[in-house]
Amino acid sequence: MQLVAEDMNGVNAVILDRMQSKVGLIPELAGHLIAGGGKRMRPMLTLACAALLDYPGTRHHKLAAAVEFIHTATLLHDDVVDGSGLRRGKRTANIIWGNPASVLVGDFLFSRAFELMVEDGSLKVLKILSHASAVIAEGEVEQLTAQRQIETDEEQYLRIIGAKTAALFAAACHIAPVVAEAGEKAELALEAYGRNLGIAFQLVDDVIDYASDEQTMGKGVGDDFRDGKMTLPVILAYARGSEDDRAFWRSAISGAAVTDEDLARAIGLVKATSALNDTIERARHYARRAIDALATFPNGKAKAALTEAAQFAVTRGY
Amino acid sequence: MQLVAEDMNGVNAVILDRMQSKVGLIPELAGHLIAGGGKRMRPMLTLACAALLDYPGTRHHKLAAAVEFIHTATLLHDDVVDGSGLRRGKRTANIIWGNPASVLVGDFLFSRAFELMVEDGSLKVLKILSHASAVIAEGEVEQLTAQRQIETDEEQYLRIIGAKTAALFAAACHIAPVVAEAGEKAELALEAYGRNLGIAFQLVDDVIDYASDEQTMGKGVGDDFRDGKMTLPVILAYARGSEDDRAFWRSAISGAAVTDEDLARAIGLVKATSALNDTIERARHYARRAIDALATFPNGKAKAALTEAAQFAVTRGY
Repeated sequence: MQLVAEDMNGVNAVILDRMQSKVGLIPELAGHLIAGGGKRMRPMLTLACAALLDYPGTRHHKLAAAVEFIHTATLLHDDVVDGSGLRRGKRTANIIWGNPASVLVGDFLFSRAFELMVEDGSLKVLKILSHASAVIAEGEVEQLTAQRQIETDEEQYLRIIGAKTAALFAAACHIAPVVAEAGEKAELALEAYGRNLGIAFQLVDDVIDYASDEQTMGKGVGDDFRDGKMTLPVILAYARGSEDDRAFWRSAISGAAVTDEDLARAIGLVKATSALNDTIERARHYARRAIDALATFPNGKAKAALTEAAQFAVTRGY
Repeated sequence: MQLVAEDMNGVNAVILDRMQSKVGLIPELAGHLIAGGGKRMRPMLTLACAALLDYPGTRHHKLAAAVEFIHTATLLHDDVVDGSGLRRGKRTANIIWGNPASVLVGDFLFSRAFELMVEDGSLKVLKILSHASAVIAEGEVEQLTAQRQIETDEEQYLRIIGAKTAALFAAACHIAPVVAEAGEKAELALEAYGRNLGIAFQLVDDVIDYASDEQTMGKGVGDDFRDGKMTLPVILAYARGSEDDRAFWRSAISGAAVTDEDLARAIGLVKATSALNDTIERARHYARRAIDALATFPNGKAKAALTEAAQFAVTRGY
């Protein structure tokens, strides 16, 4: 955060300026989510990668804002899709303003993201981010089809989180070397850094849903469980479970066992089978790959910050 | 349709090819709407405008497909927003596959539209269509805030339909002279043609909701009434109504009077106050402006077809 503080002021100025509309509900609803304690992780990655490459300009401010708009649009739509009531410790926009407003303001932010990219004018950046957006939507749809499907396996799970989460992390990092004209090797390395970091981040997110409490994380613990989401903790616990436990998981994921007692049993099982620990171990693996992707860049503040970000992705609160 | 039949085959080929995904639900759901009797009006406008300019290439096939994808995405999201059950005489995607799938497949088609534009590579086209997309979303949000608000006036209504409907008609026409490099005068004229045609089209659409039956139009008659939408027939009937009638409209638009008898009374009032006829008269005005915008183009098959399209917009079934 320190590394990119000044650039982040520039990004925030773009975000605040471009989420405006003469239709008052748009900045009101968007502001609730954008101003409301978001970590700006993805734009921060764009800025840190640009710093790594000693990029001297400010073109990336607009593009980092576009990345945050795409992310915000997907959050708005995700909360509608999941019927979520809580995000970052606050009531979700769909609860306050209803699903229709959340869907449409998401569409607005998504369009605005493309307007920002078009203003920048790089077709290569547009290609990276329009492709990432399509991949994200594909991942979300695949996640929907895997929901309540107990036979979902780790390969499919990794494909889903690679699309729904890691694609935007990868794109956020990838556009920095494009803007900095740092060459294909830097592009490949930073795309890989972002992609692996994104996978690690989502793995830990999925652990947190079984390991934290609402107060700590500002997200309803047990949401994934009640939604019948096949995340890696469940996939591993189901694969390793006794006949009894497997019957419980089938029933729970199908939606037939979702009381607080069922959640307590599920948490007990993901811990007892080491499913949580091993999911974190998988996350460590991807974080290490992310860090190794930075090997060829010179040491310095930016590289240290990106390394720290990858370490933090697996050590944050669970 | 005859004029652009061959080009339309090219557009359809792009549409079918690019709505595919390894996630099977995407082509299944998108195909339901795209293959299901859509009139392809907007891509047809792109093609007809290109024909008017004697554009010899095929670049516009991809762009017309992108326009249709944007339109399809907005239809999917509209049906979620309105909770619609019927479109083009078929059950809506949100009824068959649920709101989550409709929201996410809409997002996919929207992203895919931008991928198609990026492949074409014209920043000017990207600017026109990303701006149109943001304006559409703004119009949809404003429509949402005007819903159930009896004091909505004709000016606000025109602003809403100018954004939610006419912006994409305008953009579909505008991109043809850009691709054909026909110059700014042609761009302005065809943008105006599309914009005025779009307004006429929406005005008549809003008449149809009070004047047709489900069998004829494949759309639930009375949907706007039950949703408390402030369309021009209601705005005029309310302005012209007796105290009793105005009290009825207030109650109906607020959602307190939406039985079949109420709908019958509403239809009686929009007819008795000449609100339907005058809405069609307004539509004729915009259709005439659309036709007049074509004045400087040479006579021929394409101009005749575009003129016919504007005439048809106000004469189709009501």
